[in-house]
Amino acid sequence: MQPPEFSDDFRRQFRELLAWRRDVRRFRRQPIDPAILGELLSLARLAPSVGNSQPWRFVLVEEPVRRAEIRDVFVRCNEAARATYSDARAALYGQLKLAGLEAAPCQLAVFADEATSAGHGLGRHTMPETLHDSVVAAVHTLWLAARAYGLGVGWVSILEPREVMRVLDVPKDWSLVAYLCVGYPEEEHMDPELERHNWQERLADDRVVVLR
Amino acid sequence: MQPPEFSDDFRRQFRELLAWRRDVRRFRRQPIDPAILGELLSLARLAPSVGNSQPWRFVLVEEPVRRAEIRDVFVRCNEAARATYSDARAALYGQLKLAGLEAAPCQLAVFADEATSAGHGLGRHTMPETLHDSVVAAVHTLWLAARAYGLGVGWVSILEPREVMRVLDVPKDWSLVAYLCVGYPEEEHMDPELERHNWQERLADDRVVVLR
Repeated sequence: MQPPEFSDDFRRQFRELLAWRRDVRRFRRQPIDPAILGELLSLARLAPSVGNSQPWRFVLVEEPVRRAEIRDVFVRCNEAARATYSDARAALYGQLKLAGLEAAPCQLAVFADEATSAGHGLGRHTMPETLHDSVVAAVHTLWLAARAYGLGVGWVSILEPREVMRVLDVPKDWSLVAYLCVGYPEEEHMDPELERHNWQERLADDRVVVLR
Repeated sequence: MQPPEFSDDFRRQFRELLAWRRDVRRFRRQPIDPAILGELLSLARLAPSVGNSQPWRFVLVEEPVRRAEIRDVFVRCNEAARATYSDARAALYGQLKLAGLEAAPCQLAVFADEATSAGHGLGRHTMPETLHDSVVAAVHTLWLAARAYGLGVGWVSILEPREVMRVLDVPKDWSLVAYLCVGYPEEEHMDPELERHNWQERLADDRVVVLR
């Protein structure tokens, strides 16, 4: 079997996919076709994983009671975070929309199974965090795949992981990597929301590439 | 500006990109066009980052002396890791090719700047590891972009991070996320090398998706 050769046209579209990926916080309530959601999960599992350990565990959060509890956790954590800023930045923080937990039709908590024997520890002796990293790659894969289907994803990290684990009643060996809101975006932007709202601009090239 | 609408054909090719991404360990020595390498780094920087913090720092490792030192670090760490397995699995481990540090024309160490003020801490109060995660997303973006250009990437994690930092003389506030070999693959496979060599097979669906 020969590998595919990708064309300039594919690469142009792939760049557009990356550029329009965005972290989405404003969703329409329109539900997601279960077949598309299934495809997203299937694509996410094509992500690289250390030692082929496949440590990703996806929890689809459907029960209204659990969703309400997660929202409460977010509100508490967000208020605590806002309180750490002073003056103008606290005011700016208060104006940002940092979750989409009310409207997003799909909520997905993604965990790493820290106790998995899959992969037999390969590649993890000196950098054990690569197990966690594998799950991040799966999250990012799902994010890009969602965008290819016109869907948006918002990664909510203003949550206390232990609280999320309690609400979702997952095995104690799992660790929370990401809580995702998935749905059709209410509005579309090419620039990051945090750039547009003057929270943080793009860094210059010479700050991020170094030669040795 | 309207977001692009992606076609079924694009989605089919994107799935192929994910499926053929592979972790490559066997490289041809053919150099990479600097313009392509520049494009990969530019695409990597379209990755999501917590609070738009853009904490990725890319170190292009060119000096032969530094490359030789990194190879030495790998050999030591790999031997120590092999010694933790017993019998048949140690023998199998010994047969795996776990780095491509001799032939890969491009070597890239990717760090997280843990001390960056960019992003003003947003999204990191309860899950500070999201700074590291942002760099993982950049690594994964670069990996997929490389594949779109016919290039392969191998993520070498059998390295002691402090040793790598010493060899590359980077600021003490940076932490190593990934050491990457990049180049044209010597051979192409659709199945992961660790599946093909009976190290770890693919997990069943019901182990990774849960409903709550």
